[in-house]
Amino acid sequence: MTGRLFVIGLGPGDLALLTGEAQAALDQCTDLFGYLPYIERLPERPGARRHASDNREELDRARAALALAAEGASVGVVSGGDPGVFAMASAVFEAIEHGPAAWRAPEVTVVPGISAMLAAAARVGAPLGHDFAVVSLSDNLKPWPLVLARLGAAASAGFALALYNPISRARPWQLGAAFEHLRAILPGETPVVFATAVTRPDERVEIVTLAEAEATRADMRTMVLIGTAETRRIPRGEGLRDWLYAPRSSGVGRASA
Amino acid sequence: MTGRLFVIGLGPGDLALLTGEAQAALDQCTDLFGYLPYIERLPERPGARRHASDNREELDRARAALALAAEGASVGVVSGGDPGVFAMASAVFEAIEHGPAAWRAPEVTVVPGISAMLAAAARVGAPLGHDFAVVSLSDNLKPWPLVLARLGAAASAGFALALYNPISRARPWQLGAAFEHLRAILPGETPVVFATAVTRPDERVEIVTLAEAEATRADMRTMVLIGTAETRRIPRGEGLRDWLYAPRSSGVGRASA
Repeated sequence: MTGRLFVIGLGPGDLALLTGEAQAALDQCTDLFGYLPYIERLPERPGARRHASDNREELDRARAALALAAEGASVGVVSGGDPGVFAMASAVFEAIEHGPAAWRAPEVTVVPGISAMLAAAARVGAPLGHDFAVVSLSDNLKPWPLVLARLGAAASAGFALALYNPISRARPWQLGAAFEHLRAILPGETPVVFATAVTRPDERVEIVTLAEAEATRADMRTMVLIGTAETRRIPRGEGLRDWLYAPRSSGVGRASA
Repeated sequence: MTGRLFVIGLGPGDLALLTGEAQAALDQCTDLFGYLPYIERLPERPGARRHASDNREELDRARAALALAAEGASVGVVSGGDPGVFAMASAVFEAIEHGPAAWRAPEVTVVPGISAMLAAAARVGAPLGHDFAVVSLSDNLKPWPLVLARLGAAASAGFALALYNPISRARPWQLGAAFEHLRAILPGETPVVFATAVTRPDERVEIVTLAEAEATRADMRTMVLIGTAETRRIPRGEGLRDWLYAPRSSGVGRASA
C-alpha cells in the first residue's frame, strides 16, 4: 500500500483562516508532524497521532514523515502560513531528493495556506499591492552579505519588502543591520510595518518610519513589511491606525529606472 | 448608520481554497462587487445583490462599492487570489484617499486569500521556498523599462520570480521580451513554470527551461514562476511531472553576492 503525504499550510494562526482544502487534508491524516505550537493549534482527533518537534529540526521531521508515508500511512506535515514560503515544503522535497527511493512512492500534495506576509499586509491596507520581494533575514543557511545584497538590490529597484525570520535569540543584530543598510537607500519616511502574532489573541501591529524603525519592536512572531518611496499613507485620526497602500501605478513620469 | 466594506480574497479558483473567514464575510454582505468571472464562482444567495463589472474598471468598481458602504450597506469587493497582490485592495485604498470624506467612515476589512502564485508553486513543489520577487508584467501603469529593470535586479540578486499579468490581447509581446532579458542573466536550464487556471477544471501546469520558454504557453490565467541557478529539479518519470524546490540554503560557498 502506498501512503500519502500532505504538506499543509495552517495560515497565520486563527483557524478561521484555514481553507476547506486544508481542513479536508487534516481530516484524512493518521499522523500529523509539525513544530509544537502549530500542532497545538489543532483540535485533537481520535485516530490522528501527533508528532510535535522543535523548530530547528525541519529536515528530521520531513524524513520521519516520509518514512511513515512510505509505509502506507496518510501523513500530514503542518506549517504555519503557507508551506512553500520559508516553511516545510522545501525541507520535504530536500528529504525526498536525498532520501531512499521508497520515499518517492507516496503521493505528495502541497496544500497552500494564507501566508504570514499577506495576513500582515491585509491588516494595514495593501502595502504589497505592487511589485514586492520576500527575503528571509536568517543567515543560518545563507551568508549575511548575500542577505544585504538582496535587500539592497530589491529596495534600489523599487520593490516593497516582506521580511521573514527578522530576529531570534540566536540572531539578535541582523534586523537592525538590515534597517541601517536600507536607510542608505530609501527615504527616511518610508513606512515600516511590524506585525506580530497576526490573527492571534495577542496581535500587535505598528506602523513607523524607516528613520525611526528599531529592531526591538520585533520578535520571532513578527513580519516586517517595508514600503517604497511610492507607498501611500492615509491618516485616519481618532486613535485609528493609518492605512498604507502601494499605488497601482509605479515609476510614472520616470523614463527608466 | 455606518456601513462596512470587505475586500475579500477568493483564492485561485476552486472554492475549497476559500478560508472560513472569507466565507463568513461573503455571508454578511448585502452587495457584492467584482469582475464577472469571480462573481460567477459564488453561489447566488437571496439578499445579496451582485454587481459584476469588467476587468478594466477596478477604480470605478471600488468607488461604487465605497459609495454604497458609506450609505450603510455591508459591501464585499471580491478578488481572485489575494486582494492585496495586484488586485482590488490597492484600488479600494486609492479610491478612499482621493474620494469624499464620507468614504472614510465605513469600517474596511481586507480578508486575505490564497494567492495565485502560492497555489501555482504548490502544484510543482516549493519553487518559491527561498527569497523571491513578485512582478507584474503589465506596463499599463508603469513604464516597460522599469519592469525590465526590476526583473534584472531580482534575477541578478538570486531571487526566484513570480510573474503576474504575463500576457493579454493588448500586451502580447512583453512576456517574450521578459524571457529574452532573463536569458542574458540566468542559466538556460533555469526552470520556468507555466501554471494556468490552477485548481480549476481546465488546469494546465508545465515545467520547461528558460532556454525553451515561449510566451505562447501563457494566457491571461497563467502564473509564470522562474527559478534560480540554485533551484533543484527532482525527476519522477512515468509521465509524472518533476518536482521543483528552492533549497533552504542559498549562496553557501560564496563569500558575497
